Amino acid sequence: NVGVARAEIKQGVREVNMMKNAKEKKIGIALKAVDKGIFVAFVWQDSPAAMAGLRFGDQVLAINDEPVAGWSSDKALKAIKKAPDAHVKLAVRDRPFERTVTVVKDSENHIGFLFKKGTITHLVKDTSAARNGLLINHQLIEINGQNIVGLKDEDVLKIIQESPRSVTITIMPKFIYDHMIKSIGFGSLKKYMDHGIPEI
Amino acid sequence: NVGVARAEIKQGVREVNMMKNAKEKKIGIALKAVDKGIFVAFVWQDSPAAMAGLRFGDQVLAINDEPVAGWSSDKALKAIKKAPDAHVKLAVRDRPFERTVTVVKDSENHIGFLFKKGTITHLVKDTSAARNGLLINHQLIEINGQNIVGLKDEDVLKIIQESPRSVTITIMPKFIYDHMIKSIGFGSLKKYMDHGIPEI
Repeated sequence: NVGVARAEIKQGVREVNMMKNAKEKKIGIALKAVDKGIFVAFVWQDSPAAMAGLRFGDQVLAINDEPVAGWSSDKALKAIKKAPDAHVKLAVRDRPFERTVTVVKDSENHIGFLFKKGTITHLVKDTSAARNGLLINHQLIEINGQNIVGLKDEDVLKIIQESPRSVTITIMPKFIYDHMIKSIGFGSLKKYMDHGIPEI
Repeated sequence: NVGVARAEIKQGVREVNMMKNAKEKKIGIALKAVDKGIFVAFVWQDSPAAMAGLRFGDQVLAINDEPVAGWSSDKALKAIKKAPDAHVKLAVRDRPFERTVTVVKDSENHIGFLFKKGTITHLVKDTSAARNGLLINHQLIEINGQNIVGLKDEDVLKIIQESPRSVTITIMPKFIYDHMIKSIGFGSLKKYMDHGIPEI
């Protein structure tokens, strides 16, 4: 199943190497400090970060070999600015606050839950979503691995409707999501969010 | 690594079959409704549930084939009481709110973080815990797969000290943990909590 593979949250730590883009000398992410960790709270579309496969919710453990535990988001961003243009190396843990649930749409193409501003609000009885243990008060982050943060509910619904019957949902507790997007000027940024379909 | 294997959170849904114990006609769990899901909030030591490998944090999806999404904890408990003594079948998702981080103790046998009442409160700079992205405001649930919920901090520390150098920690955001143990009379129950070492 391609959606499952694109959504898979991998164990362990990976290394991500990027060059800053030529014009703005940026890799294209916003960072947010949560519980003494540094998290990717925004990935700019077509940026070096998007190209390198960084995702909303990834935890950055080190920037050019310097561990970032306990840093503020400002300090982490400065470390990236200070890094050589041709060599930004991040150690990354794959979306630790997220998990995936695979559900099957019914014969009428319904997904089995309702959502508002991306937050799951109701489970529909006798659907695969309810049987598979999907939970309310959780935020939709990806559909079949494709980030949908910042998209309108109607656009998310369209992606779900056009998905194969088996749909893999990536979710995060809403209170963590709210914290992660707080204070990064998300409102103005979200139209630039990377919504590309990940390579596998 | 045995600790990693014992702690591993498995994907998918498993079926757990139990008989109630002869004396009290119980399987030995407490349940808690969270976000329209039903979760195992307590496992009685030496109970049928402990023997069958149920763990704190497991999500119960169905009781004798009846889906439980949206049920209250009382309703779920009643369904177990109503089930035949010789045949309690649960569909279970493995600890969805938890994740594992493996850290290595330093040469002085230190783990690299401080905790109070099981909640991680500080990360120590330049330790494997900090480098591996452990987070504060998270609750310790298991050490090398062994449940430590309800144990005193000094007893948890002893388990960590006696562990091999590589220690796998299972954690859950503290606000979810607090919610899960709320209102189940946990204070009086915790001395009966199953702290057995899981089979692999």
